[in-house]
Amino acid sequence: MGTKKSVSVLGLGRMGSALANALVGEGYEVLVWNRSADKATPVGAKRVGTPEEAFAAEVVVACLTNYDVLRPLLGNEIRTLVNLTSGTPQEARETARWAREHGVEYVDGVIMAVPQQIGTPGARVLFDGSENHHVLGAFGEPVYVGAEAGLAATYDLALLGVMWSVFGGYLQATALMEAAGVSPERFTPLVGDWLAEVGAMLPEMGQEVRRNDYETDVSAVDINVAGLRMLTEASREQGLDTALPQALHGLFLRAQQAGHGQHSVASVIEVIRK
Amino acid sequence: MGTKKSVSVLGLGRMGSALANALVGEGYEVLVWNRSADKATPVGAKRVGTPEEAFAAEVVVACLTNYDVLRPLLGNEIRTLVNLTSGTPQEARETARWAREHGVEYVDGVIMAVPQQIGTPGARVLFDGSENHHVLGAFGEPVYVGAEAGLAATYDLALLGVMWSVFGGYLQATALMEAAGVSPERFTPLVGDWLAEVGAMLPEMGQEVRRNDYETDVSAVDINVAGLRMLTEASREQGLDTALPQALHGLFLRAQQAGHGQHSVASVIEVIRK
Repeated sequence: MGTKKSVSVLGLGRMGSALANALVGEGYEVLVWNRSADKATPVGAKRVGTPEEAFAAEVVVACLTNYDVLRPLLGNEIRTLVNLTSGTPQEARETARWAREHGVEYVDGVIMAVPQQIGTPGARVLFDGSENHHVLGAFGEPVYVGAEAGLAATYDLALLGVMWSVFGGYLQATALMEAAGVSPERFTPLVGDWLAEVGAMLPEMGQEVRRNDYETDVSAVDINVAGLRMLTEASREQGLDTALPQALHGLFLRAQQAGHGQHSVASVIEVIRK
Repeated sequence: MGTKKSVSVLGLGRMGSALANALVGEGYEVLVWNRSADKATPVGAKRVGTPEEAFAAEVVVACLTNYDVLRPLLGNEIRTLVNLTSGTPQEARETARWAREHGVEYVDGVIMAVPQQIGTPGARVLFDGSENHHVLGAFGEPVYVGAEAGLAATYDLALLGVMWSVFGGYLQATALMEAAGVSPERFTPLVGDWLAEVGAMLPEMGQEVRRNDYETDVSAVDINVAGLRMLTEASREQGLDTALPQALHGLFLRAQQAGHGQHSVASVIEVIRK
C-alpha cells in the first residue's frame, strides 16, 4: 500500500488507459475495471472483476463510452465520483442529482486533450461540482468552471464545436485548393498563420456580443454575405460538396435580412440566439 | 514629380483609401479616382475626374466594390493593372484574359487584412499573374502564389472560408455558453488557447489528406459524429439556431456512412470532394 490515495478507473478505452497510467505514474494505488476482458491492464494497476470491487477506492474515476454504460454501474458505495464520461449537459446534471441523493461527492470533468497528451500541462481538464481537484492534477491542468452541474459538459461541447468548425472549414478549404492544383502541404502553413490572425479578432467580437454593440468600420455583414456566396459558387463550380459554406451563408444572410447588413460579424449571434 | 513611379488607385472605399495612403507614404506619385464624389481624397494624392486620366500612371491599382463596377472601366491605355477587387476565381480569369488580349501587364491580388493593417508586415497580399511585385510591397507582405489567373482569388476564398467557419463556430459556442450563464469575457480566452491547439493539429491532417491515409489511434469519425449530435441537441435544448452544428453533423455523418467511421477526421474530405 502506498501513502497516496487509492483510485479506481472504470473503463479502459484509450483515454481510460491513459488516465490509469498517469495515476500509476503519480504513485496512486490504482484499481482498474473494464466491461470486457479484451483491454490490457495498465502496468502497475490492479485489475478487478466487478465495479463494486472498484468502489473500495477512495476516488472512482469513470471514463466510459457514454452514459448508457455509466448509469447501470453507479452504486452508492462510491465515496467520490470523478466522472469524465462524455455526454450532454443534461446527462451530467442527472448524474449530479443521483450523487446528491446518494451522498456521493461528485466532480464532473471534461478532458480537452487526446490520450497522448494526458499527464502533460497542455491537457486542460475543465470540471464542475466539488471544487476539490482530487486526482485531476495527475491528468493535466485542472480548471474549475463552477459548482453547477452540466457546466463543464457545456464548455466541452462549446469548445469542441469550435474545433469541428475549424476542421470542417479547413477540409472544405483544402478541397477547394486541391481542385485548383495546390497541395495541402503548400496550403496548410498559410492556414496556420491565418488562424492566429483570426483568433486575435475574437476578444473584440466577444466584447461586441457582450455589449450588443455592433458598430463597425472594418467588416460588415453585407460584404461577408457576398463573400460567402462567392465561396459557395466557387465550391460548386469545382464539383465540391457545399453543405458547410451554404450553412454559413444562410446564417450570415439571415443576419443581413434581420437588419444587420451594416453591422459587424458579431451581430450574427442575434440569429443564433433566435 | 517624385523619382518614384506614378500609381493610380481606382476606388476610394475603406480599402482603396488605405492603399492610396500607403502609396503616398512610400513616396509614390498617387492619382485617385472614385465613381462618386462623396469619398474624401487621401492627403497627398491627386484626384482625377475620369478613369482615363488615371490610366496615365505607370501602374493602375483597382480596388472596387466588385467586378460589375470594374469591367466597364477597363481600357487598353492601362500599362500595368494590379487588380485587388474581390471576386470569384472565374472573374479573375476573365480579367486576366482581357489583359492578355489588350497587351496589359496583369497582377491579380487579394489582401488578407483589414484596411487598418495596410502598410504593416502582418498584411499579407497573395498575388498571381505577373511575378513583379510592382507596388504590392507598399501594402504589406507580397506572397506570389503562381502565374495562373484565379489562383490568388481561390486562396482568398479558401482562407476566408476558414475565417467564416471560425466566426460561425465561435458565435455558436458563445451563444451556448451565454445560455449556461457564462459571459463571452470568461469564455473567449479559453477559445484563444484552444484554437492554437486545434491549429497545431492541421499539418498532420493535411498530410493525411495528401496521402489519403486515414489510420488513427487518436480520434475517429464515429466519436465525432456522436459529439456533433450532442452539440446539436444541446443547442436545440437551449432554443438556439442549429443550422451550423447540423451542417457539420451531416458532413461527418456522411463520412461515417461512407465507411470512414474508424478513420481519422481527415477522411471527411472524401465527402467534400464527392
